[in-house]
Amino acid sequence: MDVREKPIGIFDSGIGGLTVAKEIMELLPKENLVYFGDTARVPYGSKSKETITRFAYQGVDFLMKQDVKMIVIACNTVSATCLEELRQKLPVPVVGVIVPGARAAAKATRKGVIGIIGTERTVSSMAYEKAVRELNGSAKIISKACPLFVPLVEEGWLDNEVAYFTARTYLEPLKKEGIDTLVLGCTHYPLLKPTIKKVMGEEVVLVDSALETAKEVAGILREKSLARESGKPATYRFFVSDNPEKFVKVGERFLQRPIDPIDVVDPEI
Amino acid sequence: MDVREKPIGIFDSGIGGLTVAKEIMELLPKENLVYFGDTARVPYGSKSKETITRFAYQGVDFLMKQDVKMIVIACNTVSATCLEELRQKLPVPVVGVIVPGARAAAKATRKGVIGIIGTERTVSSMAYEKAVRELNGSAKIISKACPLFVPLVEEGWLDNEVAYFTARTYLEPLKKEGIDTLVLGCTHYPLLKPTIKKVMGEEVVLVDSALETAKEVAGILREKSLARESGKPATYRFFVSDNPEKFVKVGERFLQRPIDPIDVVDPEI
Repeated sequence: MDVREKPIGIFDSGIGGLTVAKEIMELLPKENLVYFGDTARVPYGSKSKETITRFAYQGVDFLMKQDVKMIVIACNTVSATCLEELRQKLPVPVVGVIVPGARAAAKATRKGVIGIIGTERTVSSMAYEKAVRELNGSAKIISKACPLFVPLVEEGWLDNEVAYFTARTYLEPLKKEGIDTLVLGCTHYPLLKPTIKKVMGEEVVLVDSALETAKEVAGILREKSLARESGKPATYRFFVSDNPEKFVKVGERFLQRPIDPIDVVDPEI
Repeated sequence: MDVREKPIGIFDSGIGGLTVAKEIMELLPKENLVYFGDTARVPYGSKSKETITRFAYQGVDFLMKQDVKMIVIACNTVSATCLEELRQKLPVPVVGVIVPGARAAAKATRKGVIGIIGTERTVSSMAYEKAVRELNGSAKIISKACPLFVPLVEEGWLDNEVAYFTARTYLEPLKKEGIDTLVLGCTHYPLLKPTIKKVMGEEVVLVDSALETAKEVAGILREKSLARESGKPATYRFFVSDNPEKFVKVGERFLQRPIDPIDVVDPEI
């Protein structure tokens, strides 16, 4: 089989990675995709490094069995926790979401004062700080974990009073520090953009890693001559470890197209 | 070994079951306890029946290996999903939290209009409705899933603006229906009592299953001659599948005493 025909594997703890899948579909419409979301064990964000690493190995093992040509870790928590370990273990290129997001933030900031929001694990890993500092050693970085944002998005409460007061409680301290750029360091957060903008004001740039990650994927495919060139339509397959009905219902809001076919698999086996 | 010396095993998806452990410690101070919280895979509330049942089997298997004389399923979601399956499988008495809570609600209501709140899984199982109807066939029951309450409690936001607006959004429809009794059908919810009271008013009775479950445990120990009588102090052991630091930090707020010793185990093995 022509290696270029093989799909790109996308791994996420749940549905958030569909924001990344969407950008890849738009930027690289010829590519076949296989998505795996570990919905039986979501959320990963407040779990330990050891547990996240174990779950991530099981998830990418499943994708490797689907004979993928590349793996995208479309989850900030996993990217921040064990990307290097995964890269060393796997025989295909592995792309995370942290470095692309950090690059976009370093480019966007005017005053060099950058805010970073994400899950507890992503924030405590300092992964974004390290990646931004490599590009801009003098940037002032203020980071903040926002653990309620993921359940808010999962509940579909994107712009009601609860969403507003949650955003205000988390983000006021960053606003006071005078950030001009805010990295949405979790793939769920782009759905809260209008509410986050209401709190932060129009002048703060919101950086969403999804598009940057799709560009990184395009660059690697080009560089390694892995880009698919067939004229046949691309195929998309979706796998979850639990509750496909909820994944389809919430996920179609992310993806803005039907999620079909979808299958349930157990990554522990 | 004298069977009465054996500990009672308490199983929960995470830390919420500590509200039940606390009531057992107070009502039955001589009993030894072993607690297992599946913090690597919490929350269970929006997962499927099959996944919850599989996780619950693994959790109670671990407790059985600790040589317990009885098992308390201190989790509404698990009690609502697979209590009968667990009971048929296990050689020791198994107590859930639904029937004790339903009994207290049936006793408390004056007008026969009862509200029930819990996770998505607990509410869709109709387990509380069935249990209340067996006691009061004419009761009017209105139930509502409140998926944001668990993450709010885990975040420690018990009485701020976000907690208030979340409670108001979920509970206003129940208030309009004229309920006089509200079952807190999730072990996390008692921590939100002051905020729930603020929305519902002082005249609505809030039923918390924890104390009722402890009474049920006492009754079974007496009936089966399993109650511990030794004068030696009781011992408490805690096990989690992940992140013991967070369990101790949040859990001591539930339990109002130190959580020690605590160990990490993997229930998948």
